[in-house]
Amino acid sequence: MVQPPSAFEVRLGADAEAIERMLETLLDPAPRPGEIARPRRLMEAMRYATLGGGKRLRPFLLVESARLFGAAGEGVLRAACALEMVHCYSLAHDDLPAMDDDAMRRGRPALHRAFDEAAAILAGDALLTYAFDVLADDATHPDPGARAALLLGLARAAGLGGMAGGQMLDLEAEGRYEAAGPLALDEPAVRRLQAMKTGALLSFAPEAGAILGGASAEDRATLLSYGKALGAAFQVADDILDVEASADALGKATGKDAARGKATLVGVLGLDEAKAERDRLAHAAVMALAGFGPEADTLREAARFTAERRS
Amino acid sequence: MVQPPSAFEVRLGADAEAIERMLETLLDPAPRPGEIARPRRLMEAMRYATLGGGKRLRPFLLVESARLFGAAGEGVLRAACALEMVHCYSLAHDDLPAMDDDAMRRGRPALHRAFDEAAAILAGDALLTYAFDVLADDATHPDPGARAALLLGLARAAGLGGMAGGQMLDLEAEGRYEAAGPLALDEPAVRRLQAMKTGALLSFAPEAGAILGGASAEDRATLLSYGKALGAAFQVADDILDVEASADALGKATGKDAARGKATLVGVLGLDEAKAERDRLAHAAVMALAGFGPEADTLREAARFTAERRS
Repeated sequence: MVQPPSAFEVRLGADAEAIERMLETLLDPAPRPGEIARPRRLMEAMRYATLGGGKRLRPFLLVESARLFGAAGEGVLRAACALEMVHCYSLAHDDLPAMDDDAMRRGRPALHRAFDEAAAILAGDALLTYAFDVLADDATHPDPGARAALLLGLARAAGLGGMAGGQMLDLEAEGRYEAAGPLALDEPAVRRLQAMKTGALLSFAPEAGAILGGASAEDRATLLSYGKALGAAFQVADDILDVEASADALGKATGKDAARGKATLVGVLGLDEAKAERDRLAHAAVMALAGFGPEADTLREAARFTAERRS
Repeated sequence: MVQPPSAFEVRLGADAEAIERMLETLLDPAPRPGEIARPRRLMEAMRYATLGGGKRLRPFLLVESARLFGAAGEGVLRAACALEMVHCYSLAHDDLPAMDDDAMRRGRPALHRAFDEAAAILAGDALLTYAFDVLADDATHPDPGARAALLLGLARAAGLGGMAGGQMLDLEAEGRYEAAGPLALDEPAVRRLQAMKTGALLSFAPEAGAILGGASAEDRATLLSYGKALGAAFQVADDILDVEASADALGKATGKDAARGKATLVGVLGLDEAKAERDRLAHAAVMALAGFGPEADTLREAARFTAERRS
């Protein structure tokens, strides 16, 4: 029996639609005033990597966190799309043959299969760069101080101490630079790796919403704590899904983590303890918002959704 | 007989040394406060791609343009290094096998040969991201408005309408997507391609110096005009060197443009007319600064140096 969507799922879907429309606007093939050109093939690759897929979890967290502090509208959606473009850039580069060598993504051929490697590298580069362009533009926020804070936060989340650094640690953990094979990372090392590779951007999303909403430093720190717990829960859930879900449900290959010797919390904790940890982390995310009333219920639901998702 | 260095060459060398020291500081392997980690292998690849080589022309133009408006010191050097890191990221990605497949760079193995393709992709990603991090930090400029302007300018120069877009046009012009081989681009198309691929960042360098120096909108536009002419002169000179220079002098392979069917101004104008055009463009850069006195002589010399360089 098909259940009707919950209020949370309706909100998630409505936000995803608004985000999709803004992505479509930002990735318009026609050059903006002052641009020499938007090369056709590059735009097609950027659009393929970005449009028509994904749960849009990061932009959703930004939009709902901004709403908690009374901010909504075009500027918030633009910032949300900047985060999503950084996420899509990282998928495009991580899927490359020299990296994780994944042929499928979101149920379709990965970008380098649908186009070629050069287009996947360049479209990733251009999406990453365009995210900073979108944030730096005063159409995103009239206050340059808020824009600079968003830009700094995104650069830290994406960079050598965040996503790019985490991906390098991940490749090293697989053992590709060791004759002896995969490294046996201990639990703190796996948590550190995941906090960089996926946690940094997921935890920045609610913080960015707080910045856009003009939240106090204290509230900003609260949203960051919420994001850190949610981001960690998301990654354990991901590790569990790689073991338990079908490739059909995920739209990408499963069982690859173990085959590659990837460092996962399922690997260091075992499946049962990993599930308990996932639920503890989701609960911690909910508890981080204890100072808020029912206006934070959507964010609380998002933490539960992250832990319970099946794809 | 070896000639003593000119005053200009002394200045170029002194600036390059200061830039090298700041790059060394920014790429310190030790994590900054608040960073989870700086993965060792990633830092080594980023340092290899960035340190100990290159003329440092872009950061030099930024530093000298800032000086023209009375700005100097750590913040200016940080911004200069951000531009150089974006330049080095683009070299690392352009050299990849899927792109231009260049094995040598600055007289050494290219990054993907010295490390591997994954490290070259990730180090490029991390350098690009780190450039925005450095610019967004208030250590670069206390005024968030100036920081936001620098960030927007750099994102536009590097992105889909700038370097990344120009590289895609360049790959297309080689004919890799055409059964009929290289495209026969006309002169305006070659100029457009080059204005994006190399011109955008070179012309942003003096404009960024003007922003850091708090220049008027008029002076900022003047420095941008200067940069556009210099950037175009640089690229024609590059096309000419690929035909005339030795691989030893350049530290990379020569004669490759023609072999690949790359779109160059030598190709559409012929060698003699390309040289005349190079000199015209360098002269136009000098003339753009006609409103300044001897305090702009270093920038004037930089335009001549760009046209006359032999490597």
